[in-house]
Amino acid sequence: MADISLHAERLTDPAHDAYQEPIYDVAQLGHVEILTPRLQDTADFFTRVYGLYTVEETADSLYLRAWNDDVLTSLKITAASEPGPGHVAWRCTSPQALERRVAALEAKGVQGQWTDGDIGHGPAYEYRGPGGHLQEIYFETDKYVAPAGQKPYLPNQPQKYNPHGVAAAHLDHINLLVPDVTAASAFAQESLGFKLRERLIPAGSDDEVGAWLSLMTKAHDLALTQEPYPTEGRLHHLAYAVESREDVLRAADIFMENNVPIDFGPAKHSRTQGFFLYVIEPGGNRVEVFSGGIHIYSPDFETVTWDTETGGRSTAWGLATPPSFKEYATPVYEAP
Amino acid sequence: MADISLHAERLTDPAHDAYQEPIYDVAQLGHVEILTPRLQDTADFFTRVYGLYTVEETADSLYLRAWNDDVLTSLKITAASEPGPGHVAWRCTSPQALERRVAALEAKGVQGQWTDGDIGHGPAYEYRGPGGHLQEIYFETDKYVAPAGQKPYLPNQPQKYNPHGVAAAHLDHINLLVPDVTAASAFAQESLGFKLRERLIPAGSDDEVGAWLSLMTKAHDLALTQEPYPTEGRLHHLAYAVESREDVLRAADIFMENNVPIDFGPAKHSRTQGFFLYVIEPGGNRVEVFSGGIHIYSPDFETVTWDTETGGRSTAWGLATPPSFKEYATPVYEAP
Amino acid sequence: MADISLHAERLTDPAHDAYQEPIYDVAQLGHVEILTPRLQDTADFFTRVYGLYTVEETADSLYLRAWNDDVLTSLKITAASEPGPGHVAWRCTSPQALERRVAALEAKGVQGQWTDGDIGHGPAYEYRGPGGHLQEIYFETDKYVAPAGQKPYLPNQPQKYNPHGVAAAHLDHINLLVPDVTAASAFAQESLGFKLRERLIPAGSDDEVGAWLSLMTKAHDLALTQEPYPTEGRLHHLAYAVESREDVLRAADIFMENNVPIDFGPAKHSRTQGFFLYVIEPGGNRVEVFSGGIHIYSPDFETVTWDTETGGRSTAWGLATPPSFKEYATPVYEAP
Amino acid sequence: MADISLHAERLTDPAHDAYQEPIYDVAQLGHVEILTPRLQDTADFFTRVYGLYTVEETADSLYLRAWNDDVLTSLKITAASEPGPGHVAWRCTSPQALERRVAALEAKGVQGQWTDGDIGHGPAYEYRGPGGHLQEIYFETDKYVAPAGQKPYLPNQPQKYNPHGVAAAHLDHINLLVPDVTAASAFAQESLGFKLRERLIPAGSDDEVGAWLSLMTKAHDLALTQEPYPTEGRLHHLAYAVESREDVLRAADIFMENNVPIDFGPAKHSRTQGFFLYVIEPGGNRVEVFSGGIHIYSPDFETVTWDTETGGRSTAWGLATPPSFKEYATPVYEAP
Repeated sequence: MADISLHAERLTDPAHDAYQEPIYDVAQLGHVEILTPRLQDTADFFTRVYGLYTVEETADSLYLRAWNDDVLTSLKITAASEPGPGHVAWRCTSPQALERRVAALEAKGVQGQWTDGDIGHGPAYEYRGPGGHLQEIYFETDKYVAPAGQKPYLPNQPQKYNPHGVAAAHLDHINLLVPDVTAASAFAQESLGFKLRERLIPAGSDDEVGAWLSLMTKAHDLALTQEPYPTEGRLHHLAYAVESREDVLRAADIFMENNVPIDFGPAKHSRTQGFFLYVIEPGGNRVEVFSGGIHIYSPDFETVTWDTETGGRSTAWGLATPPSFKEYATPVYEAP
Repeated sequence: MADISLHAERLTDPAHDAYQEPIYDVAQLGHVEILTPRLQDTADFFTRVYGLYTVEETADSLYLRAWNDDVLTSLKITAASEPGPGHVAWRCTSPQALERRVAALEAKGVQGQWTDGDIGHGPAYEYRGPGGHLQEIYFETDKYVAPAGQKPYLPNQPQKYNPHGVAAAHLDHINLLVPDVTAASAFAQESLGFKLRERLIPAGSDDEVGAWLSLMTKAHDLALTQEPYPTEGRLHHLAYAVESREDVLRAADIFMENNVPIDFGPAKHSRTQGFFLYVIEPGGNRVEVFSGGIHIYSPDFETVTWDTETGGRSTAWGLATPPSFKEYATPVYEAP
Repeated sequence: MADISLHAERLTDPAHDAYQEPIYDVAQLGHVEILTPRLQDTADFFTRVYGLYTVEETADSLYLRAWNDDVLTSLKITAASEPGPGHVAWRCTSPQALERRVAALEAKGVQGQWTDGDIGHGPAYEYRGPGGHLQEIYFETDKYVAPAGQKPYLPNQPQKYNPHGVAAAHLDHINLLVPDVTAASAFAQESLGFKLRERLIPAGSDDEVGAWLSLMTKAHDLALTQEPYPTEGRLHHLAYAVESREDVLRAADIFMENNVPIDFGPAKHSRTQGFFLYVIEPGGNRVEVFSGGIHIYSPDFETVTWDTETGGRSTAWGLATPPSFKEYATPVYEAP
Repeated sequence: MADISLHAERLTDPAHDAYQEPIYDVAQLGHVEILTPRLQDTADFFTRVYGLYTVEETADSLYLRAWNDDVLTSLKITAASEPGPGHVAWRCTSPQALERRVAALEAKGVQGQWTDGDIGHGPAYEYRGPGGHLQEIYFETDKYVAPAGQKPYLPNQPQKYNPHGVAAAHLDHINLLVPDVTAASAFAQESLGFKLRERLIPAGSDDEVGAWLSLMTKAHDLALTQEPYPTEGRLHHLAYAVESREDVLRAADIFMENNVPIDFGPAKHSRTQGFFLYVIEPGGNRVEVFSGGIHIYSPDFETVTWDTETGGRSTAWGLATPPSFKEYATPVYEAP
């Protein structure tokens, strides 16, 4: 019989009044805008190969959705001179939560502004975070209503499952490069209520080089990676989820058949334990197909600090991370 | 180009002040106690076949855990004259959230009582819900600390993955029979903050015969099914999750090899879209192996009301529900 | 230490000269023709939903292929007043093997005839087997040569993997109803060299009601099922293979979304251990999506005789076989 | 409508009398012996981690089996000063086939000898092939007969499925290093009837550096890889199969949890299209967990000649082959 005094630990603070409650004011990564110098090629990649659908088109932008997104649109792709992130949008859990988060941002010195919204959502508070990325928080959202021909067999699904290409299912997370991971992570936690699930501080170093943060129970909605160059505002990658690891393996075949070179994977992440596959879309942005990842249901989880990559733990099964994965991001950095 | 005025709907109430915010005060199904007239056989099933681990043993009870539970114990099995539920325990997100939920319960007329806790958790507020089941809410919890030999390779995992049997990974949800589904569902929503994700009201009927409710983003942590007999307090089933549908299929082979007859499945649920497999453990309780299930990230989801089982929608692929699935529960009902 | 005298058995006959060598003169189920009263609907099902490709069209027939068939065409669908089998074609391993098999057929009293072949293959010897089905054996075959746009990334694959619908991969097996299973099985073994892998003779009966036969190492290329009605020449089902059980589960979703009702499955067969899913195509023929199935590499396997369906062994996990599965076949039998 | 004259090719030789018939005299890789300087550690790896069972033990050797091997034993591990191959044993399809293959070997100048057999099989003809490896061909074999407690639920399976560790299912193939791939491949084809499925001849080179050969329909039972050092008789790897790619991914987790470092994979091979994972067992030999791989049912397949590794085709998804994979083999080569 196990001696539980050895094998368990009660972590919670008995001083209940002082207990810092988790914040659940932000629900999800609502949508993302990415920039591309090759709008039509990027659109072709996302719709024909990655498996998204176009829902609206303006002069410079296309609005896309995945078959299992319940919102109208989760991705805006916009013509620009360089690839990179346009903006990153977090959806709050209520109008009141939105107001609280705006107050929290402003209490931290943020000077943002309200916009009227865009196709797919209502008024948003737009600001730049500590890593230089344009972000916004909002609540009002357009839900997708399937037209005839797209009605699903099961009514608890937004759209008919009629897979083409990779059939990416729904927007999952984003990874941004930031000059100071610790500072950007603290900002995300304090202003929007992100939970810091895991972080990487190589042994013998004080530098936090990665942080994985989430809003509800996911392993991450936002990853922050240390920017290796003297620049800011860059995108490491954008990820949609698929249902199973088999779907990720299937995606690898489809990418190869469509001349989309694989940057990294398929393999299993050590952090998050998700199963991953990265490619570079024709506009230059890194895009992931992601499946699984742990869910953290305990409200008093302890942040896992990784202090080593030894033993093959840069990925779960020892596959080394290619140098490009640490250096390449969009916009591409060019030394002056 | 799609006309979004036809294919999207903005659901949120513009009167923000009146917007009813979701409650995130309860984090998870923390643990469950089940009763069994054959304690050793039930223990053998759960540890050798289902793949759990024993962490503590008392005169009448065993405390078990799954390899991917971060808490010390998620299942207590207790000797009794009949099978059935012992108690169902919900873990709050903070001490303050616990106090708010006790107040909410008492505001609804509940007369519960505080206990000192049990192996694995601290003080709990114990009460009977509208369906007659003993339930409790609590916050302080013992986390599992892996002893030597059980340390995982990846530090973001509670215990080494050294699978035996089905290798059930973590406690997922519970299904309780209640005389009045609508009332029990409203109680769960109003007192503990459950979100009503889906419900079944057969066409031509006013009777809600099933409700699927969740705490955070899962498709369900709690299912309520209409009790067909004049009794109360019965258990329909208890479910642990595994990582993939392949793991459910593998479980089916293992159950057959171990003479554990399959009650229903493997197949895909229409509600929740989870992949399921039900067996009856030797003590008589129905136990599920569950995988997948949709996650609902939108904070303003709309409850899906199923009004028909036609078109094969009692399960996702048309497999009929066996009569035993609707009638059998524990304790077994015997007409007087 | 195990006592191998208890746990092993040397099966082979020491009288080597008398040992009956297995015959490897027939390589595969080469192609199948099915009849349909709704040619366009059947074609739509096979190409849009089941995922095949059209390679040729004549006045009354379409010739189809799966992406992983190395032959030009594996399925011919022909307009007719009733659904059912057209003909079943077995491909020999060499011209000499073809001659030997023709001689073996004629030695058993078969009076067949040579045809000039058809789109996709050369001269064939056509005959009716003991169950009344039109069959043929042949050798010369057209291999698929991928045109531009269908070239695969990997040269060991016949066609680009660009999945649509179920993406059935290659022709796998056929199940024919015969009045006398034992006689038809013996004929298949003696004339074409089929190996009898498994058979079903219900306890207390002398009637063999099912036989599973294969040519090389597969669990079956041909299944023979007892015809329940006073008729002959009927088709139970035709099966294409997909790579994994996940692909079968995915097919179930796709069939439901396309209003193709599922007849049986997905589940695991007890015989062959394959993972199955049956639907009825719009013309009325039963079509399977099949994955896995044991391979039998031992040349001196022993036929497995199933004498019971008890313990849930009609399928591997206890799912009962629906009555329609035993009775429905094409052409549909109508009592006079 | 496709023009089949462009998209098909009739490959078969019309001069039937001269057609060279395929040989089906050898059925399978029957068993393998490997040598290890750490017998107990190697045994622990294969039984506890890889999931095999011990069936017999002698002074210097253990005889192992996988749960889905129908033969009594498929692996003999023998204590030796260095790791490496002991012998490789091919099972013939009949006593007569064995005699024919001995005659064919001797016609090629082989001077082998008959042995009385070993635990698990009868008389064998033992010889050294052109790469210096000890090989044998035989027919009489002991089949496993499951004792009480190991009886399977389904009678078409040799042993109960009660998985532990990786649960390797059955012996699949072997890869041997040879100084002259073309010569060793021709020898295997001409003496034993191997079919040359694929080969690799880098562009601009005349050197065949790899050959993949099979006996029946598998993508390979035997791989031959060019020996980079002035030595002979070395083992590249030994492989058992598991049922699905998910089982390979699961194996990766189990290897990591058991401190078995991964050499390469999991990933998809370009040649054979199998899904692979390589580790080094404690004795030093490379061992694979393999799943899938194409089956070639056409008797007149054309050998696929790979002339390039460009486009990421050293594996199917572009993962580079680690240098160790090309150089490391057992016994380890040490320059004089």
